[in-house]
Amino acid sequence: MYEIVRQAVEERDFKRVKDIFSHLEEADIADLIQGFHDNQEVDAKDISLLFRLLPKDTAAEVFTHMDSDMKELLINSFTDTELEDVVDNLFIDDTVDLIEEMPANVVQRILHASDSQSRRLINMILKYPEDSAGSIMTTEYVYVFKEMTVKDTLEKIRSLGMVKETVYTIYVTSQHRRLLGVLSILDLLTADDDEIVGDIMDTDVITALTTEDQENVAAMFAKYDYVALPVVDNENRIVGIVTFDDAMDVVEEEATEDIAHMAAVSPSEESYFKTSVFTHAKNRIVWLLVLMLSSTVSSVIIGHYEAAFAAVPLLVASIPTLTGTGGNCGSQASTIVIRAMSLGEIQLKDFFKVMFKEFRISLLVSVILGTVNFFRIYIQYYNDPTVDQMRLAICVSLAIVAAVIMSKLIGCILPMAAKAVHLDPALMAAPLISTIVDASTTLVFFNIALVVFNISM
Amino acid sequence: MYEIVRQAVEERDFKRVKDIFSHLEEADIADLIQGFHDNQEVDAKDISLLFRLLPKDTAAEVFTHMDSDMKELLINSFTDTELEDVVDNLFIDDTVDLIEEMPANVVQRILHASDSQSRRLINMILKYPEDSAGSIMTTEYVYVFKEMTVKDTLEKIRSLGMVKETVYTIYVTSQHRRLLGVLSILDLLTADDDEIVGDIMDTDVITALTTEDQENVAAMFAKYDYVALPVVDNENRIVGIVTFDDAMDVVEEEATEDIAHMAAVSPSEESYFKTSVFTHAKNRIVWLLVLMLSSTVSSVIIGHYEAAFAAVPLLVASIPTLTGTGGNCGSQASTIVIRAMSLGEIQLKDFFKVMFKEFRISLLVSVILGTVNFFRIYIQYYNDPTVDQMRLAICVSLAIVAAVIMSKLIGCILPMAAKAVHLDPALMAAPLISTIVDASTTLVFFNIALVVFNISM
Repeated sequence: MYEIVRQAVEERDFKRVKDIFSHLEEADIADLIQGFHDNQEVDAKDISLLFRLLPKDTAAEVFTHMDSDMKELLINSFTDTELEDVVDNLFIDDTVDLIEEMPANVVQRILHASDSQSRRLINMILKYPEDSAGSIMTTEYVYVFKEMTVKDTLEKIRSLGMVKETVYTIYVTSQHRRLLGVLSILDLLTADDDEIVGDIMDTDVITALTTEDQENVAAMFAKYDYVALPVVDNENRIVGIVTFDDAMDVVEEEATEDIAHMAAVSPSEESYFKTSVFTHAKNRIVWLLVLMLSSTVSSVIIGHYEAAFAAVPLLVASIPTLTGTGGNCGSQASTIVIRAMSLGEIQLKDFFKVMFKEFRISLLVSVILGTVNFFRIYIQYYNDPTVDQMRLAICVSLAIVAAVIMSKLIGCILPMAAKAVHLDPALMAAPLISTIVDASTTLVFFNIALVVFNISM
Repeated sequence: MYEIVRQAVEERDFKRVKDIFSHLEEADIADLIQGFHDNQEVDAKDISLLFRLLPKDTAAEVFTHMDSDMKELLINSFTDTELEDVVDNLFIDDTVDLIEEMPANVVQRILHASDSQSRRLINMILKYPEDSAGSIMTTEYVYVFKEMTVKDTLEKIRSLGMVKETVYTIYVTSQHRRLLGVLSILDLLTADDDEIVGDIMDTDVITALTTEDQENVAAMFAKYDYVALPVVDNENRIVGIVTFDDAMDVVEEEATEDIAHMAAVSPSEESYFKTSVFTHAKNRIVWLLVLMLSSTVSSVIIGHYEAAFAAVPLLVASIPTLTGTGGNCGSQASTIVIRAMSLGEIQLKDFFKVMFKEFRISLLVSVILGTVNFFRIYIQYYNDPTVDQMRLAICVSLAIVAAVIMSKLIGCILPMAAKAVHLDPALMAAPLISTIVDASTTLVFFNIALVVFNISM
């Protein structure tokens, strides 16, 4: 498809391009044009030309699927009237997203192109805290008053001429916009024309407050399987709705953020390639510095036990095995606990239940690892007359058992403790856990070694 | 709410319970009953009694929200007629999920309670490969023939009496079920009664094949913002639809799976507490063993350079800093690349582009880390006459620069290589990367040390 369209553009057969576009989904058209631009196969002037081939309502939706560079390029090529056409056909929440990505001079043009009612709504949404229900809601929804008939309601839906998911649920309000009930479009279809909506509406409505965290809103979608969720203010007046597609974006966005945190990276707003080398480095360097400097603790501990490894140099060779195993056990526990907390499977009140569970898991795991490690060392140094295999094997295996149990406990305690003091649990993931586990494992290891090898310091 | 209902049950005021239930969402009723059972506050007999308070259609949906233990308990308490009522009101995909979780004797009762048409559909869905579009689709959807009028179609929707999201899109087929086009319910509302659906349908339909991976299906939802996606067989005959709520579950499930893989844990089918200690241990032990045994390589390398740290014992103290920093850099790179690949931001063809980007990031990061580390060591040992601060600082900092560059490259190469040979990239995450980075970092470090301190082996 890409090649066919590219060739048509090259031959300047725009009639053909227009025809192909008419059979494509908006997201796919956006992908095509975006591709031409990213691969520098079509110049900026022809990109705007391609965009002008689209009917007005299609154009607006194609526009929302583009990346921010492309949007800026297009807006700069638009006349004021063209910009008005696009902005007119955008959903309010998409306009708000656009305003948040654009530089100030472009924002001014966009606001100028919006009618006064849209401007009022845009300003309202911009005021809600980032990542709140208010900030992701759209203000296009169908509301009717409870005295209206089914027939009136159907008329209203028809006359609004709205498209897409925002019309599947109809909200019934008082004259002051207080939310009284909901109706699905199916309820309307199966009711008689002269029934009163107030009589057939469902009055048990699940709502989200404007200030509700978007993560909780997405969780409500996952729980109730709704197509849309009404957003209300403190007086239960409906101010917008969140639709399932926005909730799906939130689920994906939050997972990406958690994953980044777990790898000690500050999350990036943009995609991998759109993020500059400098920003990537900035997102990674802070944690790396903190962790590198924290590892000084391990260095000091090792330095302190110089006498031990001067007596038995092979102790040093076991450090990577111990810190590695401890780190892996700790990150397993913390990752599982962090994910289970963000899915709501683990609550703070389960603190001791989780600790006890991780303790039992670590007992099982540590005994297996310790035993295998015992035989590994015994076999590895079997023919080496300079090594006391038995003592070395006992010493390292005991240290492994201790390391596994400690690190599993640290791995589950820290994320829950973080949550208790309202920090993001995902920050307590693998990298930080490993650093803490490194220090404690080394300390325990050398103390065991002092006893087993009977070394005095 | 929980307390109020619990008290009503205790006082055996079931009329009150029934009244409260009538105002609650199905998912919330399920949570309540599930809670009573999990906390052992209401006995099994009363649990079934509570369930029997619900109207038939509500009961089925409440049932789908329960966990598998609870479902089994309920089914075992049902008479055959009661089971039939529940199964009758379940969506086919929920029945299939149920069959997959239940033990054989319960499955037999469920199949027995299904009518012959449902049984046929259940068997069809069970045959699709796990995690395919066919395995998550539902077979309840509205289809009409292209010769029908808008009025007929609306009549059909009304007569089906279906609830929820499955009626928002209407599929237009040939007499042989070949998919010809789609209509939204809104198209029907805004059309005249006597128009022919074949004339107003949209013929450019995005479909998924029954064998398509569920991850790709979820990605299509994220891209096109559909409420439902038709699933077709090889002859373009519609066999079912996937609805947005199932797609949302897939997004969450796949993220959980990726996160587990990244922490070297085999994903669990069940929630944290429902998974037994033994299964948790089993899910974690394999990777721990593999990684522990692989760390032998680092041990052997360290053992090999005994002469180096016999001459300069403080070299040992820097091992945790080096392996820790290398491991963190590697896991940052691999995590970011793995997530970007699963979001489709990075393709295999971008291999060299990613490597070049990570190389530039690592240059920036390594110079900063190396410099900071140089001063840290210089200051830490400033007053220690037994230490050659300058040489130690140079040696460790050079090793850090090398470790950071190597580990960023390993961290981006391995996940992409895994993908190229059709392995799950998430397996190439932090733990495996750390183990490989540990060995290579140690090797480079001691070789730099030999040169800087002029040690001969």
